[in-house]
Amino acid sequence: METQSLTIQIKKVEKSKINEVDFNNLAFGKNYADHMMYCDYKDGKWHTPQIVPYGPMEFHPSTKVFHYGQAVFEGMKAFKDDHGTVHLFRPEQNFERINKSSKRLAIPEFPKDLFFESLEALIKLDYNWVKPGQGNSLYIRPFVIATEEGVAAAPSDSYRFMIITCPSQAYYNKPVKVLFAEKFSRSANGGVGYAKAAGNYGAQFYPTNLAKSKGYDQVIWTDANTHDYLEEAGTMNIFFRIGDKLLTAPTSDRILDGVTRKSVIQLAKDKGIEVEIAPVEVKRIKDAAKVGELKEIFGTGTAATIAKVTAFEHAGEEFPLPEVDKEYSVLMKDSLQDIQYNRVEDKNNWLHPVKP
Amino acid sequence: METQSLTIQIKKVEKSKINEVDFNNLAFGKNYADHMMYCDYKDGKWHTPQIVPYGPMEFHPSTKVFHYGQAVFEGMKAFKDDHGTVHLFRPEQNFERINKSSKRLAIPEFPKDLFFESLEALIKLDYNWVKPGQGNSLYIRPFVIATEEGVAAAPSDSYRFMIITCPSQAYYNKPVKVLFAEKFSRSANGGVGYAKAAGNYGAQFYPTNLAKSKGYDQVIWTDANTHDYLEEAGTMNIFFRIGDKLLTAPTSDRILDGVTRKSVIQLAKDKGIEVEIAPVEVKRIKDAAKVGELKEIFGTGTAATIAKVTAFEHAGEEFPLPEVDKEYSVLMKDSLQDIQYNRVEDKNNWLHPVKP
Ligand SMILES: Cc1ncc(COP(=O)(O)O)c(C=O)c1O
Ligand SMILES: Cc1ncc(COP(=O)(O)O)c(C=O)c1O
Repeated sequence: METQSLTIQIKKVEKSKINEVDFNNLAFGKNYADHMMYCDYKDGKWHTPQIVPYGPMEFHPSTKVFHYGQAVFEGMKAFKDDHGTVHLFRPEQNFERINKSSKRLAIPEFPKDLFFESLEALIKLDYNWVKPGQGNSLYIRPFVIATEEGVAAAPSDSYRFMIITCPSQAYYNKPVKVLFAEKFSRSANGGVGYAKAAGNYGAQFYPTNLAKSKGYDQVIWTDANTHDYLEEAGTMNIFFRIGDKLLTAPTSDRILDGVTRKSVIQLAKDKGIEVEIAPVEVKRIKDAAKVGELKEIFGTGTAATIAKVTAFEHAGEEFPLPEVDKEYSVLMKDSLQDIQYNRVEDKNNWLHPVKP
Repeated sequence: METQSLTIQIKKVEKSKINEVDFNNLAFGKNYADHMMYCDYKDGKWHTPQIVPYGPMEFHPSTKVFHYGQAVFEGMKAFKDDHGTVHLFRPEQNFERINKSSKRLAIPEFPKDLFFESLEALIKLDYNWVKPGQGNSLYIRPFVIATEEGVAAAPSDSYRFMIITCPSQAYYNKPVKVLFAEKFSRSANGGVGYAKAAGNYGAQFYPTNLAKSKGYDQVIWTDANTHDYLEEAGTMNIFFRIGDKLLTAPTSDRILDGVTRKSVIQLAKDKGIEVEIAPVEVKRIKDAAKVGELKEIFGTGTAATIAKVTAFEHAGEEFPLPEVDKEYSVLMKDSLQDIQYNRVEDKNNWLHPVKP
């Protein structure tokens, strides 16, 4: 991962398609900003990053990513404050995590300078795609795919790192009902659960469909071994409020080290809320629900921000969550967004401004 | 999966590239026959299969397979006998398995008639790419990828089913040394280990690289939970011979139900060799090795056929396998190939001939 001084090559769109987009009616991940970045790895090194108009690319059908899921991704957001300045939220966390994921997937790590230079160049070009106002953001999707042509099950010798972006409003508009996993599992010790590996997501679709057919929006994954401990949701970490205390599982081999999770832990501490980071037993949550001590469950993730859970199901029984005053989920969401939209002092240095 | 009567559309190459290929020097999975098949799923149904010249296709960078590994594949082979007739080996097994894999990955199943009609049409077109002679075959790679454009982590609404083929010689030319997994894992109960899901393979590259750096070719995966039981290799099931008996793990949620495995079990039974299908404890194998009762270990898979293991490593100790007369691995490989090349009676009805 040596530092190279490579100029980014930029080819701008002839005409922006921003006027074709209805920013008040965005389906998540369906509209892409004008430009995208790609950077190829071959002959043992990353070459010059290219910023080009967003559009299709050619791939041979034997391209390894199609066959072996050798691919990782990230999800991050840029917010525009009321002065019109764009801020990335904790982007160095996503940079570090994509390389952690890459390492586990035998993908060469991406250099830090190339990551930040090309990310900033891309944001500058598509500055108008970042809309100000609560809930609006530019969702940024860095990803790496294996591009060698060949159907032998071995690591690729070439890769493409890409960044695409899409304007987004809040991901989940409505509160969610969840189902605690009892049979299916998401990851195991010694596996790739802690990585944002492409295959982790496709593997969840079927169990999630089954949950949906029972009226639940998401699965909360439990440990694959006993299903006794609650781990995380498909694209969110998960918090439980018992009394006035927040509980969340420790990160591990199996659990993604979420940026929103660690930010919420910090914000809670800053506000004097106790956070217990320890394995969360299903039984404890059910018992707390039965005696009325379970006040809230919420998910945390870049796309969803904070998603309030209104009920959970386990072993055929549904447990509705109570209505509470001064919800932690609202407090956390407000505190997080106040920082993200640069409305309060950024004490923890989480914002990374990008000037136009 | 209703049966439809759709004509396959065929567009032939103008000029075959068969003369550009050195059939005596094939790198596995690097040369593709002239034609490929693709069939798109959209608006809730599979459309007309297309057979076209092998070549690149356009994909948007937001195509779901790049992000969520929603993809499955198969590996099967066609053999040419001494009379010049091509035979597929147990293709209905691969057909059933790809749909089993698809189901787990929330991919719509592919219709049987379309599978066989297009597979046969493809083989007929590229008949000359199947070379006769021991070890030669046409490797056939059916696969399905999620093609919807969109970065929301939810199942795709469109898919592409494809078949590409490549001429191949024996996959592993030399015997292999293996390492029994002690920390990393391949799959868990409730996961996707039994499916040929793309993500299962990318996830193995890093641990396999570590094994390689220690001088071992492959990892033999153990159960994720205790690492006490031997399950399978990256692209092979695994057999142990203790005395005159063969041992192999039962298939499960975690283990691929290999076509070669089940064929070897049948052939062994036909020959009066006892096969014990039960969890294979690491300790049992090590103990048997220590007292000289462990005679052989071999892997079974379509690409590798039968791969002889010469040594295994566990807990820092290497156990070389002895030289034995009348190896089961050789007996099994010969018996299998005698059937595949149509040199003996096909008692179990495993061959599926395709006339030119
Ligand atoms: C599996 C999983 N867990 C949790 C999260 C939340 O992480 P973050 O807060 O960094 O977005 C995500 C999304 O990135 C995820 O994919
Ligand atoms: C994980 C895994 N195990 C075993 C096998 C062997 O299966 P088969 O004999 O059907 O090729 C394969 C290859 O297909 C595989 O990918």
